[in-house]
Amino acid sequence: MGRKWVVENQIGKKNLVIEDCDAKQSVYVYGCKDSVLQIQGKVNNITIDKCTKMGIVFKDVVAACEVVNCSGVEVQCQGSAPTISVDNTGGCQLYLSKDSMGTSITTAKSSEINVLVPGAQPDGDWGEHALPQQFIHIYKDGQFETTPVSHSGG
Amino acid sequence: MGRKWVVENQIGKKNLVIEDCDAKQSVYVYGCKDSVLQIQGKVNNITIDKCTKMGIVFKDVVAACEVVNCSGVEVQCQGSAPTISVDNTGGCQLYLSKDSMGTSITTAKSSEINVLVPGAQPDGDWGEHALPQQFIHIYKDGQFETTPVSHSGG
Repeated sequence: MGRKWVVENQIGKKNLVIEDCDAKQSVYVYGCKDSVLQIQGKVNNITIDKCTKMGIVFKDVVAACEVVNCSGVEVQCQGSAPTISVDNTGGCQLYLSKDSMGTSITTAKSSEINVLVPGAQPDGDWGEHALPQQFIHIYKDGQFETTPVSHSGG
Repeated sequence: MGRKWVVENQIGKKNLVIEDCDAKQSVYVYGCKDSVLQIQGKVNNITIDKCTKMGIVFKDVVAACEVVNCSGVEVQCQGSAPTISVDNTGGCQLYLSKDSMGTSITTAKSSEINVLVPGAQPDGDWGEHALPQQFIHIYKDGQFETTPVSHSGG
């Protein structure tokens, strides 16, 4: 089969690398802490589950990168990813690349999700955007209208 | 002082009542389970913290009713409430009255929040509205635009 990479229960390992992967494989990262994982090729899907203070760097995903039940993770997409989803997570820094600025980011039950997008100039500063984590719902004309609450000055 | 009613660690008590209250007092409900609390007068503020399968019926609040760290709670507002906030809660049925249909409902880190509004006719059916719990963020013109994902057919 050879369809799934599993990285489990790694603690304090800063040099984890998945090198020889292809677009039909998926990566499942579970229960890791204080570690960094690099995924150097294109994979179909990445799931990061129940990790704390974890860094993940990947190139491309064909389907989605999912962050679930995590706290304090950093995820960097160096290539493209159609969807990045964040569920039940407190604290996630998400670095996008030029090729993934159009990605659709889905969040649920999450807080402190920041997205960093590259600057317009090659050596420009990253732009940091806090995603809304609070929403106001008001009943109008027989329906609820939902508006995100934005906190930052921007 | 006499400014705060505290209801803590009640389990299986279906007849809890706060009768003699006024608009300067607040109510704090913590750690209750399988219980029902009625608040029969106007109070300043109600906080429901870490309760499970709990029912709360109140008339009016001056400031806000807050539901935090709960699961499977039912809250009924029979009068008016300017704000109802739901934070870090999975499963909340919120019954509004004619006088509280304009309330501003705030949610964060929550799922399965349903709001029931009275029908137009006095004996009409309640209308049930699931609040969005998932959001899509897409980068456009230097900012993220956030859209709620609606699941139901409506």
